[in-house]
Amino acid sequence: MLKGNAVIGQSGGPTTVINASLAGVIDKCLQADGVENVYGMRYGIEGFMRGDLINLGREEKAVLEGLRYSPSSALGSCRHKLQETDFQPVLEMLKKHNIRYYFLIGGNDTMDTIHRVESYCREKGYELIGIGIPKTVDNDLFGTDHTPGFGSAARYVALSVKQAGMLARDMKYVDQYVIFQTVGRSAGWLPAASVLAKRAEDDAPHIILMPERPFDRERFLASVQGCHERYGWCSVVCGEGICYADKTPVSASTTADRFSNVEFGAMGGTSAALMLHRMIKDTFGWRGEFQVCESLQMAAADRVSESDVEEAYACGRRAVELALDGHSGVMVSILRQSNDPYRWSLGTSPLAEVALGEKPMPDEYISADGRFVTPACVEYLKPLVGPLPEYVRLKGYAV
Amino acid sequence: MLKGNAVIGQSGGPTTVINASLAGVIDKCLQADGVENVYGMRYGIEGFMRGDLINLGREEKAVLEGLRYSPSSALGSCRHKLQETDFQPVLEMLKKHNIRYYFLIGGNDTMDTIHRVESYCREKGYELIGIGIPKTVDNDLFGTDHTPGFGSAARYVALSVKQAGMLARDMKYVDQYVIFQTVGRSAGWLPAASVLAKRAEDDAPHIILMPERPFDRERFLASVQGCHERYGWCSVVCGEGICYADKTPVSASTTADRFSNVEFGAMGGTSAALMLHRMIKDTFGWRGEFQVCESLQMAAADRVSESDVEEAYACGRRAVELALDGHSGVMVSILRQSNDPYRWSLGTSPLAEVALGEKPMPDEYISADGRFVTPACVEYLKPLVGPLPEYVRLKGYAV
Repeated sequence: MLKGNAVIGQSGGPTTVINASLAGVIDKCLQADGVENVYGMRYGIEGFMRGDLINLGREEKAVLEGLRYSPSSALGSCRHKLQETDFQPVLEMLKKHNIRYYFLIGGNDTMDTIHRVESYCREKGYELIGIGIPKTVDNDLFGTDHTPGFGSAARYVALSVKQAGMLARDMKYVDQYVIFQTVGRSAGWLPAASVLAKRAEDDAPHIILMPERPFDRERFLASVQGCHERYGWCSVVCGEGICYADKTPVSASTTADRFSNVEFGAMGGTSAALMLHRMIKDTFGWRGEFQVCESLQMAAADRVSESDVEEAYACGRRAVELALDGHSGVMVSILRQSNDPYRWSLGTSPLAEVALGEKPMPDEYISADGRFVTPACVEYLKPLVGPLPEYVRLKGYAV
Repeated sequence: MLKGNAVIGQSGGPTTVINASLAGVIDKCLQADGVENVYGMRYGIEGFMRGDLINLGREEKAVLEGLRYSPSSALGSCRHKLQETDFQPVLEMLKKHNIRYYFLIGGNDTMDTIHRVESYCREKGYELIGIGIPKTVDNDLFGTDHTPGFGSAARYVALSVKQAGMLARDMKYVDQYVIFQTVGRSAGWLPAASVLAKRAEDDAPHIILMPERPFDRERFLASVQGCHERYGWCSVVCGEGICYADKTPVSASTTADRFSNVEFGAMGGTSAALMLHRMIKDTFGWRGEFQVCESLQMAAADRVSESDVEEAYACGRRAVELALDGHSGVMVSILRQSNDPYRWSLGTSPLAEVALGEKPMPDEYISADGRFVTPACVEYLKPLVGPLPEYVRLKGYAV
């Protein structure tokens, strides 16, 4: 077994449970013979290259325990795309601190970072084990049934749409619509999760707009009008990245971030929800509102999905077990065994595949009209989000 | 004691605990000798005039119990401003159903409605007892220490600012600011409540913008820059209705609703937060986001303040007790006895005074620079919101 120090970093946007994965890595490393010290990189690979390392073994027990239920990236995060000139400084830092175990928690850009660092070290004859731990609220990571972080964000979305839908229904003679925007650039998993808010036919959501389907202004407005005729109001949930058929985002913004990802939503200075709001307002003259929660849905530790916390922690521990067994160049993945009762296990996916892949919603999860989800999608989502609170509705016996 | 039926209605925007007040009224009415039936008006006074009444005594026990923890206005709500021509139809409906007890849960417009209906009936020789039950998330109702609904909305705000602040801090090398907008047209109680998120000096919020103080673009941007220099990022919380010194709203919208209240935020097609976001982005070229949650902060039943639920329910019961004792033309009010331990009791305020008054934040609750709150404000807010969850932060022992 390789002996030396371990380093762990968090990368990309945070989730509610990314610290649970961190706790899993630390707890297991502190028990492992092969690992002498477990270091944390402050602000990801950027901090690592500056030598900004902390000794996680020295943290108090209460802090380490509290990590499992504290949101955000406790180590600090970054969005650095590794350059060719970065590899040499990274290798020097690894050597300087005798780091032999290299763990990163992140999405596909992060998996690419680990993969390239690990390959570079192998090429240079430096023994390094690199393992990825999946994370993203968008759930679009290739090679895993779902991603830690998604279930809790999905729960935030479903709860919000449920609660705001009750308000909109009860205020339908004042306001005629409510629009909720989720994060998720290219995959519709989060808007889809709002379906779990629905019990009765008139419950929110009525229309779900996912980036997997082109946005058609006329058909959308016709659907909105149809809901208004049936229910007296309309609930719309949209992903931030929905686009017209010609790939123009519904939000007007076209700023690109450093990974050449187009920035949508509040970051870009406008949002898809705001544009939908204006369309409805201008077409029908109704009152209504749009809700843009942005990173709140990635941070609501009081609204976590219990299975999400458990899986995030387990993924962290498993990464260390895999490393100690000599595996390298893989990401821990979650395999679903059954939906009801919900059973899962852990596997692995090659980093090189994860880095290049994407996981949009499959066709069989999206309804034929492209503006709602199917029962199969509900079955997929349910165990990841857990049961939502039940609220009462008056029967209303006429006098 | 006057014998007859009671009617209860909900009016204006909902809160998380408005159904707890409804439950209080129903429970007490069902026990009261003087009240034969307790009816609910669907969609407020508008539904009442259409004769849209339901018999609340026929609802199942589980539904009545569940009301205490279900958000929104279970009866349906409206925003109808009573016209002179409405009084006669209202009186006829009261007579038709032998209604002698008239309860409405709402804000100052609602208190005005009760007051005018009660006066009209007195004038016409119809014996009617009218009692108001306070409700508003804005906390700007005159004649009560605070308003049921505020504590829970304040808790939503404080939790959101706390969680999103952790994210922003941990992502400070990527995104430099986060802006959270609260509801509340003319009073700053909700943005002020975000202060409860703060433990350490660098915690969110850094800047709180309340409508009680004029917005000054240059001073605001200088404060943002100062925070960025000290902490590397900046958290801004703003009320939707903040205005420049000349009363121009920071949001561009100037639509007026039926009560001649200017509509801000997402309702108006833009928002103060979006404008602040653009100012910061354009001035400093930073990345950051704005969050506009709108009615979500009025509906988060999983985030209620326990004292808020308790008080809302107690206000409903007390309204019935007052009515049975022959009081009329008053609103139930909350009196604060002490902060620590928190003790409160119930009193009354004349409807006529509540209808005309407003309760902005007092000067002693706003810091000298107008962009934060004072320790006295924190003491006022604490017991209404209850303790927030504590999250951990790594000590960070350098390697």
